[in-house]
This record gives sequence, structure tokens and C-alpha cells, in this order.
Amino acid sequence: MLSHQQLISQIKQKKSFLCVGLDTDINKIPAFLRDHEDPIFEFNKRIIDATADLCVAYKPNSAFYEAYGIKGLQSLINTCNYLPKDTLNIIDAKRGDIGNTSDKYARTFFDKASSGMDFDAITVTPYMGNDSVTPYLAYEGKWVIILALTSSVGSKDFQYLDTNDGHLYEAVIKKANTWAGADRLMFVVGATKSTEFTNIRQYAPDNFLLVPGVGAQGGSLEEVCKYGMNKDCGLLVNASRSIIYASNGEDFAEAARAEALKLQQQMAEELEKAGVI
Amino acid sequence: MLSHQQLISQIKQKKSFLCVGLDTDINKIPAFLRDHEDPIFEFNKRIIDATADLCVAYKPNSAFYEAYGIKGLQSLINTCNYLPKDTLNIIDAKRGDIGNTSDKYARTFFDKASSGMDFDAITVTPYMGNDSVTPYLAYEGKWVIILALTSSVGSKDFQYLDTNDGHLYEAVIKKANTWAGADRLMFVVGATKSTEFTNIRQYAPDNFLLVPGVGAQGGSLEEVCKYGMNKDCGLLVNASRSIIYASNGEDFAEAARAEALKLQQQMAEELEKAGVI
Repeated sequence: MLSHQQLISQIKQKKSFLCVGLDTDINKIPAFLRDHEDPIFEFNKRIIDATADLCVAYKPNSAFYEAYGIKGLQSLINTCNYLPKDTLNIIDAKRGDIGNTSDKYARTFFDKASSGMDFDAITVTPYMGNDSVTPYLAYEGKWVIILALTSSVGSKDFQYLDTNDGHLYEAVIKKANTWAGADRLMFVVGATKSTEFTNIRQYAPDNFLLVPGVGAQGGSLEEVCKYGMNKDCGLLVNASRSIIYASNGEDFAEAARAEALKLQQQMAEELEKAGVI
Repeated sequence: MLSHQQLISQIKQKKSFLCVGLDTDINKIPAFLRDHEDPIFEFNKRIIDATADLCVAYKPNSAFYEAYGIKGLQSLINTCNYLPKDTLNIIDAKRGDIGNTSDKYARTFFDKASSGMDFDAITVTPYMGNDSVTPYLAYEGKWVIILALTSSVGSKDFQYLDTNDGHLYEAVIKKANTWAGADRLMFVVGATKSTEFTNIRQYAPDNFLLVPGVGAQGGSLEEVCKYGMNKDCGLLVNASRSIIYASNGEDFAEAARAEALKLQQQMAEELEKAGVI
């Protein structure tokens, strides 16, 4: 588990704000791994070993594990328990429900004695308001990462609606920041929307922003940094497919490392340019 | 799996539009069940046996199972496979993600060969727009139930925001109804907001509305019917705690049946009053 300050320290030390997304699909991993008892975990383990010094966060996407029932959940539990202690370990679950149900989801992902898992942070969807967020904050030191502006096609349907408090995504950020501080709350902001970062930084100067969409989805790292970086960096940039599926041969872990290294080097430049390191 | 017409037939035949919520909590079930290999499933099995002729739908709340890791998921799978074939079996999962991830969640809850589960319908949260909905519709005959207006405290945070297309919850209903018809889409509308039903019926005349909040949460069945019922009924009213925890002694199943019967009898009256039966 990393506090706000510890996360900033890790970023400065590793010269990286990379989050590696573990959207591991059994149909996309190298064939030779499929004979293992738990091929998805075996794949993740080697990806983690190959990238841990280059990134500050990991983010398994829960759906990719849940799709395989008991076996999939076991892979997720194994992965969770293998994640390094000095990275921020995010479960990308996008849950969002009323209080007593959010409380059960908090237990699912934060309470190892109950579920076998102990992530540091969870992504949530804000539609149900503070019910969807506050039960997670009862777990000391855990983070909630709220969907604000996503990089998907469907983001235009509701997130950009004009409300009496700005676009819906702006209303979400403003309201959520009344529930907790930047030491507990982050926001998801899609990297294909880099011009909106300037806007978002007015309402969320100190929050970390979790940015998917760089790499396979076409967002530009330079643009994201130009508009979204704050004095402490304030960004976690996620890459998943471009790293974990860089090769599907026996060299997949080395290829993943090479891709992560490329991103880490660009990140080091951006951190220097902005005077963070 | 029930089609729109089959669901209407079941409602007329059983004179009921009751959905029994299986929010089963290990700490609230009778102590004598705890020695069973799978106490949560054992509890659900007896509740289902005691209520199947009085309700048209069941709705396990996924969080209550997920909280217990592998063991909890096994209880959910066992429950799913025990649910009657002539009820609409809803997984209350409130997922909502981009297309490729929603696709995995669809597999989780709709594809038995992959996950062990085969529900008929899933609740989803609309924040990410059509990405959160359309992947589920690729499964023939399955239903998507979209959160519109909820009965929780947090509903005031965003669902009532004024947008250029009405309140946010109205914009959600209008937009979602362009993605599919009333034979595939339902909406969640909290029963504590009965005056809003009139409004919602303007945009969703034919959709079924899934209504939580009657019973323990204080909503009135009569009000819901007065403002929300359409010519085919168009309502599924959920009760959970008031039924499943009616007693925590050895008579818990009989007590659950008695509570379900009370609601079914009120529902029969309302159906007659409205001329549906």
C-alpha cells in the first residue's frame, strides 16, 4: 500500500509514472504457457518480474478474470498476492452501487481475510453518487479512483452532457472532491482527450489522474504531460496491450520489458522537462 | 430465459410481479445452516423452494457473494444453476465499462461454458454510454437493466442534475431507448420516487421498470403501481431483506413465504385494479 507521498517518491525514484494493465486474455497469451496449471497467473508473474522496476502501478482488469468463473478468480487472487509491495496495485473493477453493497465490494477487493485479495485501490463508476465511493474510504489508506472522462466511444453519450455545474464529468470531479482529499481520490481521464486536462486541473489540481488510452488506443504521452502534469507529476499512465502482448513467442516477457522501458524513458524525459525530477 | 411476452404471461398467470432479491449475508442467515458445506446456497435453495410460485424473478446481488472470494463465487454459481427456468433470473452486478471489457462481463454472467453461470439479465450502470450496454445485447434473448433513478441517498448527487436533455436520469432513459427496444431493455427506478414514475412513463411507455426500495427501504407499492404500471404491468418490484430475513429461526423459509404471499396478494389486487388481469 502506498500513500500519496510514497507514490510520489516511487515516481521520482523510478523516473516513471507507468501503470501496467493486466488485461490478460487466455486467447492472446503465448501457446506454450497453456500447459501450466494457471496459465493466466503464470503469464502475469513473468510480466510482473520483467517490468516491476520500470512501473509504479499494476492494474488487473477484473472482467478478464471473472469471465472464467472459479478458475479465473483463482488467477486474479494469485496475481493479487504476487504483486510487489512497492507498487500501487489497482483493481480495475468499475463497481458502483448503494452503500451496503459498495461495502461488500470493498470487502471483496480490500479484505484479504474475507476474499483472499488485498488491492490498494479500486476504480468506481460515480452514477450512484457518494454511496459508490465512501464505503471504500473506510479502509484506511486505500484509494478510490473515480471514472470522470473515459476514452471510449460511449463517453460522448453522457459524460459531455451540459449540466448546471459544467459538463457531467466536471460535475463529478467537483462533487467527488468534497468527499475526500487528493490523498485518497484519483480520477480516470482518457488520454485521447488531452485538451480537457487543462480544464480538469482547475478542479483537481492535486489529484492523481489515471490515464488509459496511451499506446494501443492512440493517445499521446507528450500531450497528456503537457496539459495534465502537476508539480508532483500527478499522472499514472496506463498501458496494457502494447506492453503485455508485445510478442506472443517465448520472448514475451523480454518484449514486454522493452516496451515498458521505451515508455519509462519517455516518462523520465517528461518528468525532467517539467522539473519534477 | 423469458422473452417480453413470456414475462407478461408469467405475471398474469402468477398474479405477481414480485422479484425476490437474494442479498444473502452469511451473518444474517439462521445459525443452524452454517454447518452445511455451502450455507449461503443452502439458504437460497430453501428460499427459492418456498417462493417460486409467488414471484416472477430472482435477483442475487453479486457483491454479497464476491465478498467471500472463491467460496462466495461457488455459492453464486450454485444458486444460478438452481434458479427456476420460468423466472427471470437477474444478476445484480451494476457493471459498466468499455466495449471489450463489457464483453468479458457478458461472458461472466451469460456464458455458462465459460464461467458456470447463465443469468437472463444483468443490471448495468450507464456512465460509459453505449459501450456499457451493447455487448450484452449480442447474447440473444438476454436483458440489460440500466440504472436510471435509484433509491439511495447518493442519487441526488448526479442523477437529478439538469442537463440539456432533462434530468440526467431522463437523458439516460431517452438515449438508452435508442439502443434497443423494450423487449431487451429495462430500467431501475427506485420506489421512493413514485411521483417520478409519471414522468418516466413518457419516455419509457413499454419498458419494464425494476423497482427496488419497497419494504425495508420504505417505498409504497400502491404509489408505485398508481404512477408506474402500464397496460402489461411493466413493473418488477423487488423485495429482499423483508422476505429473506423475515425470521432467522428454523422457520425462515415459511416466514419468507408468508411475506412473499402478502406482497403477491397486494400485487394481485393492483393488477386487477389496473385491468391487467
